[in-house]
Amino acid sequence: MKEWMKNIRQVVPYTPGEQPRGRSVIKLNTNENPYPPSPLVEQARSNIRRFRLYPDPAARKLVDALALHYHLEPEQVFVGVGSDDVLAMSFLTFFNSEKPIFFPDITYSFYDVWADLFRIPYQCQPLDGQFRIRREDYEKPNGGVIFPNPNAPTGVAEDLDFIEDIVRHNQDVVVIVDEAYVDFGAHSALELTRKYENLLIVQTFSKSRSMAGMRIGYAMGSPALIRALNHVKYSFNSYTMNEAAIELGTAALSDQAYFEQTIERIVRTRERSKKELARLGFSFPDSMANFIFATHPRIPAKEIFEAARQEQIYVRYFEKPRIDQYLRITIGTDEEMDTLFQFLQNFTNKN
Amino acid sequence: MKEWMKNIRQVVPYTPGEQPRGRSVIKLNTNENPYPPSPLVEQARSNIRRFRLYPDPAARKLVDALALHYHLEPEQVFVGVGSDDVLAMSFLTFFNSEKPIFFPDITYSFYDVWADLFRIPYQCQPLDGQFRIRREDYEKPNGGVIFPNPNAPTGVAEDLDFIEDIVRHNQDVVVIVDEAYVDFGAHSALELTRKYENLLIVQTFSKSRSMAGMRIGYAMGSPALIRALNHVKYSFNSYTMNEAAIELGTAALSDQAYFEQTIERIVRTRERSKKELARLGFSFPDSMANFIFATHPRIPAKEIFEAARQEQIYVRYFEKPRIDQYLRITIGTDEEMDTLFQFLQNFTNKN
Repeated sequence: MKEWMKNIRQVVPYTPGEQPRGRSVIKLNTNENPYPPSPLVEQARSNIRRFRLYPDPAARKLVDALALHYHLEPEQVFVGVGSDDVLAMSFLTFFNSEKPIFFPDITYSFYDVWADLFRIPYQCQPLDGQFRIRREDYEKPNGGVIFPNPNAPTGVAEDLDFIEDIVRHNQDVVVIVDEAYVDFGAHSALELTRKYENLLIVQTFSKSRSMAGMRIGYAMGSPALIRALNHVKYSFNSYTMNEAAIELGTAALSDQAYFEQTIERIVRTRERSKKELARLGFSFPDSMANFIFATHPRIPAKEIFEAARQEQIYVRYFEKPRIDQYLRITIGTDEEMDTLFQFLQNFTNKN
Repeated sequence: MKEWMKNIRQVVPYTPGEQPRGRSVIKLNTNENPYPPSPLVEQARSNIRRFRLYPDPAARKLVDALALHYHLEPEQVFVGVGSDDVLAMSFLTFFNSEKPIFFPDITYSFYDVWADLFRIPYQCQPLDGQFRIRREDYEKPNGGVIFPNPNAPTGVAEDLDFIEDIVRHNQDVVVIVDEAYVDFGAHSALELTRKYENLLIVQTFSKSRSMAGMRIGYAMGSPALIRALNHVKYSFNSYTMNEAAIELGTAALSDQAYFEQTIERIVRTRERSKKELARLGFSFPDSMANFIFATHPRIPAKEIFEAARQEQIYVRYFEKPRIDQYLRITIGTDEEMDTLFQFLQNFTNKN
């Protein structure tokens, strides 16, 4: 090994869900929306015009649109390059205690990565046997709290009282609720930000708003939290949101009727999918997200995953303790789900 | 102060160059290109279509276009959200020695910020009295080397032998040449990457390619360097380049004739501007960039800066040791420069 190679950062590369390109593929592995965004987004492409100048570092147009949408002041909204960027920036900004931050043991797989990256001590709190957060675990001294609601990859949602209870017990640290999937049926904790200045809500355009391709995430909370995020962002990378993200994100927000229709369709398909999966012998926690986390009592998840892949049906499989018998199945169109169920019917009959 | 506020990261917020919005403003403060990108970029907006799916994390289309353009393999090209993102990622990936990294004392203002952010020890090497890098300073043991060529905000370029000499003396660490402004007349060190596996070249679409609004930067080097960058990137934020950046960046690369014309115009205006500034009594290092770093023997730079601002002419002023008598003046259109010279003529006569 050459000398300069010794100082290269050693990382465990994350394996993103496969992005197969063929047309015949049924892609139920990365929780994307099966429906395109509002036609207004396509129309807004002609608004992308300011190429030669740096974009507005505050992305004010998009921030204003979000503030209007959620009945907030612009000073309560921060935007970033997908919720991954917003969350990483939040870790960096808020989690500077010597006490460990807390998050569930089964959760979004980047939390421990960012904690390691920024040398933030952390401690995972195990979910219970039903994949529920045990709120008493979050009553111990800590340097901050983060969890998704609904949780991923389980799909389990907690109600507002539950969230408030955790926030109430953690008023000396920043509490982040990662609501990437909240629009599919869970209750947002946004209203609690009026009462708790230390609560940050993070959402994304990648799931319910069909805009994964444009990389837009956002955080909402007290002006004190948002100001801190902006200071840190400006201090080392001022211009992150490009003109296209600002223009098309604003357009995507403007068609609420379309958005609600899309959600309704996905929720309807999800509820039907639960029935089908149960009929096929699968069990799963009740999901409020756009995916179902399902296990079969007899057939190993990995076998199903690999056989489905052979049939060009991609679902997500995590080879990790406690969840290696589960498949995370994104809710696609009704036709896509029917193809999956047909496959599962055949496969479970044969095995 | 509330308890949770004590753990907020303390930063010195960077002040980006002002982004005034009025039409009458003459904006010579952020080194943007005064000309729009090729008309092919506008046309390519209709190629932005994959909204609902995550973008290709490898941004292969854009990487392939860059590889073709620079006669490299795709394995030698890395892309990011502006060169700030690429440079920050490079610091994180390559500068993990306990020895300090070296860069000039007068240089791009984010180097020390990223070093602090990632807790990388660093040592600034003073430029000489003519704002030149002293190569012997870079022959001492270090944990890595980075400098811009041409340097910013001075505009001073070094030739290939000079660069190679520094690389030759630093084969045990990664050497990064930040070539944000190289297209305006300096010689790129790209050809040295064939010989030195530890040399990384970083460029951007924000200046010569008139695409600051789209946030596209890139690094070129050996497959070993590029692989390391990708591993680190994937490990904590897989999807950074949105569909628009990929499509429009590719389009911007495709019109070489237009690109060369634009560069020629700017270089012509720059050379004329040097004559005008000299005539007005200013002195400046000979710039190979799209800006001139100028000082007046009599009138304090800050006074000129403020008076120009009153006239809606924005240039850049840095209130920092050694350079607080200088103004960094971006090369605009001929008309814009004439307005500036007219103002300077009047102002220097009166003061």
